[in-house]
Amino acid sequence: MSVPAPFDIDAPYLILVGDCSQALNAKTGFGLVHWARERCLAQWRLQGEAVDLGLPDLTPAAAAAAGARTLVIGVAPFGGGFTPAWVAAIVEALEAGLDIASGMHTRLASVPEIAAAAQRAGRRLHDVRHAVRAFPLATGRRRTGRRVLMVGTDCAVGKKYAALAIHRALEARGVPAHFRATGQTGILISGGGIAVDAVVTDFIAGAAEALSPDADPSHWDVIEGQGSIFHPAYAAVTLGLIHGSQPDAIVVCHHPGRDTIDGYPEFPTPSVAECADLVLRVARLTNRDVQLAGVSYNTSALSDDARGQLFADTIEQFAVPCIDPMVTGGDAIAAHLIEAFR
Amino acid sequence: MSVPAPFDIDAPYLILVGDCSQALNAKTGFGLVHWARERCLAQWRLQGEAVDLGLPDLTPAAAAAAGARTLVIGVAPFGGGFTPAWVAAIVEALEAGLDIASGMHTRLASVPEIAAAAQRAGRRLHDVRHAVRAFPLATGRRRTGRRVLMVGTDCAVGKKYAALAIHRALEARGVPAHFRATGQTGILISGGGIAVDAVVTDFIAGAAEALSPDADPSHWDVIEGQGSIFHPAYAAVTLGLIHGSQPDAIVVCHHPGRDTIDGYPEFPTPSVAECADLVLRVARLTNRDVQLAGVSYNTSALSDDARGQLFADTIEQFAVPCIDPMVTGGDAIAAHLIEAFR
Repeated sequence: MSVPAPFDIDAPYLILVGDCSQALNAKTGFGLVHWARERCLAQWRLQGEAVDLGLPDLTPAAAAAAGARTLVIGVAPFGGGFTPAWVAAIVEALEAGLDIASGMHTRLASVPEIAAAAQRAGRRLHDVRHAVRAFPLATGRRRTGRRVLMVGTDCAVGKKYAALAIHRALEARGVPAHFRATGQTGILISGGGIAVDAVVTDFIAGAAEALSPDADPSHWDVIEGQGSIFHPAYAAVTLGLIHGSQPDAIVVCHHPGRDTIDGYPEFPTPSVAECADLVLRVARLTNRDVQLAGVSYNTSALSDDARGQLFADTIEQFAVPCIDPMVTGGDAIAAHLIEAFR
Repeated sequence: MSVPAPFDIDAPYLILVGDCSQALNAKTGFGLVHWARERCLAQWRLQGEAVDLGLPDLTPAAAAAAGARTLVIGVAPFGGGFTPAWVAAIVEALEAGLDIASGMHTRLASVPEIAAAAQRAGRRLHDVRHAVRAFPLATGRRRTGRRVLMVGTDCAVGKKYAALAIHRALEARGVPAHFRATGQTGILISGGGIAVDAVVTDFIAGAAEALSPDADPSHWDVIEGQGSIFHPAYAAVTLGLIHGSQPDAIVVCHHPGRDTIDGYPEFPTPSVAECADLVLRVARLTNRDVQLAGVSYNTSALSDDARGQLFADTIEQFAVPCIDPMVTGGDAIAAHLIEAFR
């Protein structure tokens, strides 16, 4: 079975903002502009009050003429479903010659008008939240190249941003590297990857193996994490991803002040040390030399002084670098990876 | 969402042996007769040399007249698919008024003749290898009643037999208990359960929660395990099952002499102590009082003396009872559970 193509979704993108007027609901669009500006050609707003991502405004026909290949749905629609206005917009984009990429729960092809228009126009529909392929069972075979995996004390603690920042820093230092997305926003940002939480459990480690194939010995795969080994619902996702990724290094991601698992107030968030200890223990099954390579914090609620103290304490405790991807970027950990695995 | 009915597959069964002449390929049929003799009315052999399960021979029409409700496919077909002779046999059983239950990979309804016959006859098709239902996310909420979960140092080390033997022993002592099946053979034996390895990873802990619902405080769910936390492909299945089961007690199952994970010669099998230690550590997430309640061995390759020595050593090391479900039954562990959780 072939490995997933790292750039399966064609760029550049036209980002559909639609009539969304709440910036919070346009997180996907803002994330794309922040982390993959080079893949974003233009935005398409359906009304004057819609959120502005800071991209040129183009219609599908104009965007296609300018080279756009895919319309990406950049906002979370109210209620999670397709409104008639959206369906009409997507059909218009298909007729203009664009593929469609969506991170929504509802599959694009489940809307008859969209399925029919894609068929007529010969365009592709990418439902990135869904695992479209079957995967083989994991083999446990060691692969060539290096891998660093983000792991979290909880969901939504900055794993994707940490991975993107470390990937960007490795490339800036001239190290060959891929960001490997494991969730829908990451897939849209990088144009490839696997929504591992949608894979049948028997095959999740196999999917993780397929995500980071054999590579040049100097190459790094920077793998976005999912869930947390301490999460009462998602830990299986995390463990399958750990085993199949067979990481050489892990980065623990944490949001200081998050005392309990989000949505599970009876479940305390583990400390960074507890998280690192358990993840390293289970990760040794498929890579006995795995090591902690850094800690990534979301310090948005901290003062500069408090952040500095936290970083100093962390570096002293673990003897690895410390980042906040939105404040420091990922270079400290990139430099450590290069040095530690020379 | 309602919990799965514990007896969703109607008994008694007519077991299809077909033309299978190899006892090894009739493991499901033999397991049904051994562990659920009261659910097995008759066998249906399509030729004289077919394996004899020790049941009366009846045709579907005669079995239906005698009260049979479901034709269970009791053998693994050569090549894993449906032959024309099998399709004809299944259609005949449907027309005689029987439901069909199959543990095969190929879904019954994927064969047009079978789907049409089931529709005509108004009968149900049970593909027990497949998870037919959607499950909610795990909540982590503590449920009433007691739970004991089998965990293994590898796949195929006797987890199902250990669970069945312990369940049988609890019932013999008058303790209210259910065997909760997590794989296809267990589902056929008990008539209910969930093939947890076929559940999408996000929902596996939720499926495990649904499998053992709230119960009377004195009630025990004896939960068949799956995989191993040390298995490079299946550990995610095991972890989701552990977290969702929130077991009060675990039983470690091991096959002495199995030095590497079956099919993964580079992965050593853990010791019973290593397995218990890691499983207890991760299980504490959803039940901090979880404890080791016994060790179950497959001692089929050992002399009586060697078995006695192994049991004595194990009891000394762990201070819990030791069984081989095929030799001793499960009473030693059942008695310990009753005593330890009085």
